[in-house]
Amino acid sequence: MKVYSDYDDLPKIKLPHNQEVFISDSTIRDGSQMPGIVMKPSHKLQIYEYLHEIGIEKLETFVFNERDRKAVYEMFDRGYEKPEITGWARSSEKDIDMVLDVDGIEETGLLMSVSDSHIFDKMGLPSREAAEEKYLNAIQYAVDHGLRTRVHIEDMTRADNYNFVYPMIEKILEIDPETTVRVCDTLGYGVPFPDVDEPYGLPSMINHLKNELGAINIETHIHDDFGLSLANSLAGYWYGANWSSLTFLGVGERAGNAEMEKLLLFLSQRVEGFEKYNLEPIADIANFIEKELDIRIPKNKAVVGKNIFAHESGIHSSGVIKNPFTYEPFKPETVGREREILVGESSGVGVLRHKVQEVLNELMDVNTEIDKNDPRLKKIQSEIQSLYDNEQRQSCISDEEIRSYVQKYFLYEPLVKNKPSKKEYYKENDENRGY
Amino acid sequence: MKVYSDYDDLPKIKLPHNQEVFISDSTIRDGSQMPGIVMKPSHKLQIYEYLHEIGIEKLETFVFNERDRKAVYEMFDRGYEKPEITGWARSSEKDIDMVLDVDGIEETGLLMSVSDSHIFDKMGLPSREAAEEKYLNAIQYAVDHGLRTRVHIEDMTRADNYNFVYPMIEKILEIDPETTVRVCDTLGYGVPFPDVDEPYGLPSMINHLKNELGAINIETHIHDDFGLSLANSLAGYWYGANWSSLTFLGVGERAGNAEMEKLLLFLSQRVEGFEKYNLEPIADIANFIEKELDIRIPKNKAVVGKNIFAHESGIHSSGVIKNPFTYEPFKPETVGREREILVGESSGVGVLRHKVQEVLNELMDVNTEIDKNDPRLKKIQSEIQSLYDNEQRQSCISDEEIRSYVQKYFLYEPLVKNKPSKKEYYKENDENRGY
Repeated sequence: MKVYSDYDDLPKIKLPHNQEVFISDSTIRDGSQMPGIVMKPSHKLQIYEYLHEIGIEKLETFVFNERDRKAVYEMFDRGYEKPEITGWARSSEKDIDMVLDVDGIEETGLLMSVSDSHIFDKMGLPSREAAEEKYLNAIQYAVDHGLRTRVHIEDMTRADNYNFVYPMIEKILEIDPETTVRVCDTLGYGVPFPDVDEPYGLPSMINHLKNELGAINIETHIHDDFGLSLANSLAGYWYGANWSSLTFLGVGERAGNAEMEKLLLFLSQRVEGFEKYNLEPIADIANFIEKELDIRIPKNKAVVGKNIFAHESGIHSSGVIKNPFTYEPFKPETVGREREILVGESSGVGVLRHKVQEVLNELMDVNTEIDKNDPRLKKIQSEIQSLYDNEQRQSCISDEEIRSYVQKYFLYEPLVKNKPSKKEYYKENDENRGY
Repeated sequence: MKVYSDYDDLPKIKLPHNQEVFISDSTIRDGSQMPGIVMKPSHKLQIYEYLHEIGIEKLETFVFNERDRKAVYEMFDRGYEKPEITGWARSSEKDIDMVLDVDGIEETGLLMSVSDSHIFDKMGLPSREAAEEKYLNAIQYAVDHGLRTRVHIEDMTRADNYNFVYPMIEKILEIDPETTVRVCDTLGYGVPFPDVDEPYGLPSMINHLKNELGAINIETHIHDDFGLSLANSLAGYWYGANWSSLTFLGVGERAGNAEMEKLLLFLSQRVEGFEKYNLEPIADIANFIEKELDIRIPKNKAVVGKNIFAHESGIHSSGVIKNPFTYEPFKPETVGREREILVGESSGVGVLRHKVQEVLNELMDVNTEIDKNDPRLKKIQSEIQSLYDNEQRQSCISDEEIRSYVQKYFLYEPLVKNKPSKKEYYKENDENRGY
């Protein structure tokens, strides 16, 4: 018999390959390409600080213009060991030279688009061979100039992997056996299940790179067009990759990338051996990105949404009041948050009783316990329900409103001696009007 | 050699079990429990219309109060065959009677919480046996009164399945062999990979229900607390489930549920044999839910975000301008949308050229082609870049602004004869100020 009554009872999962895994940030790079975002050097620096606080191992950045480079130099000035600052270049000497010009950068990504659509339609190259030559020259140039490399195999989930991509990666590994092979699921076509054929199946790709080609460093970079970016990033780790390229809140081109906060949460809460990351800054990061970069966060977004520790409905709230483990997947403080119990359309009397007790305790500074059949509770509930019945109301009942109901039914009405003057009474109620 | 140059070249995937699969809506039920949402009967009716337009097979709804029932009767009045309207009840005769009281409802869900936390802490029952007795009585009562049933095995991903849940489900299947067994991943603990142990692994659960217990109808209902709801819903289908319970935009308790629009997109675009769903209403549905239920949609949300067909960065936009297949995962019209090419901080001269040509074509009603080295393009680009360099600017350059640049550099300056009066010129430019 297995009993799971508390967070510590729930068994953690092991990554099947038991490898050490790492995270690489792309918020500062792919995120800055997001339509409608303008990431200033000061934003990049703040994101760098957050990455450092969490313990993220690596980031990538553009170094094409003054603004890009200003941000990089300011990051280096902080003197942090982590995250490592790495560059990003197309497969051209000119781009690589720009990376080489920045003192301190020791690794660069190299864009290598491999789908026929990208080779022919986007780049206008005459053949796959021409693309391969361009890419091999680029990595050779980078290696010759002392850079560690990371090859961004773009649009690999829509490419002819067996006939073109894998043979090319073999040649790449001859030039730099330690290169990080980034599997770019550029259009989000990847599928996380092990029985899926080329070119979509992430597990079969990771397996081939690792076991057939002997790649030591494998990274996923997954877009969310079909909503599977997190699962595919996790599938990467599951089937043997050791790096994952992620962005906060999934910012990035189109539907963006796999969310860093989600993968961090899964690793730290669900997988054995992930004490290395500190998730407390996540709530602050979400606020920062929402305010400074104007990314809207829906109430129901996992890890960062306003609602994830908010409980309103009868069944859920009364469960949480008895024991938060019933309906909370992890402790709010894990990600720098607090629990909220809300009274709304779907709340039962149990929730209302809890809130009323809270208010009484606060107002009178004593511990109260109200009988769940107290007629005053029923009266408040009936007043609240009538607001919703008449469709006057679209939002939850605020704590201030609850306070006003408590004063009306528990303090003023029964306590004749302490009844406030009419003037005071109406003043109090005026302030709390407007439902 | 495989060449994928167009959407039709990309092979579709087969569901491994080749079963017919269906979708059940929970927007109207779980969505209405979302803290901060008040779903009026008129909202429910509109959602019902959308579900009908798409071709969704089933929905579930509460019937506890007058507002709930009003919505149900209005749905029945439409006379549609699909979606079927089904009820929702806790495992009590009183709740089941409320479902029976609504003419026309033929199936009900029955809540059966199975984790020890829910049995002991939430419901205050003395033992697992007491819970089982309550649940078996409830399904017997429902069956005796002529209802089809659906058993909602709540919090199954934190329950002792082998020792308690599976033996109970065997008894349930004896009472109603055709019941739909809903695997409720209530706290989002499910994992979509086939090698994961109890209680988390969705594939192993589905496999056990189907092959060991002989369940005919298996449904998933997955919450998104760890961001894996879509992958787990898909894993359900992948490993043999035939139903999936979903909500639009993932509305629901806490981080909500698996998003219906995402699963619809994956099925219709990626899997063989899903012509039965019409996805065109999705853009309208997203607008409706954002406006009427006040759910914020981030720009980068898959399927419904503003950005998913917006292209700004140099590499992506110039690819899309040459051939949308390069950087668009599916055609915008699939989900009732249009493409947008934006000029912003990360745009290259190719994008600007495209936009300038568009404006010229529109203003002059002729087809123009501008050389990519045209000095006027460089001037416009340099004006735009200086806005970002000076950090004056946080947003994209609007189409109106592009029009103003085109007028300045392509129309007014070179065309001396047609030069507007000073007054007109400044008037024009005043209107377009404010970057």
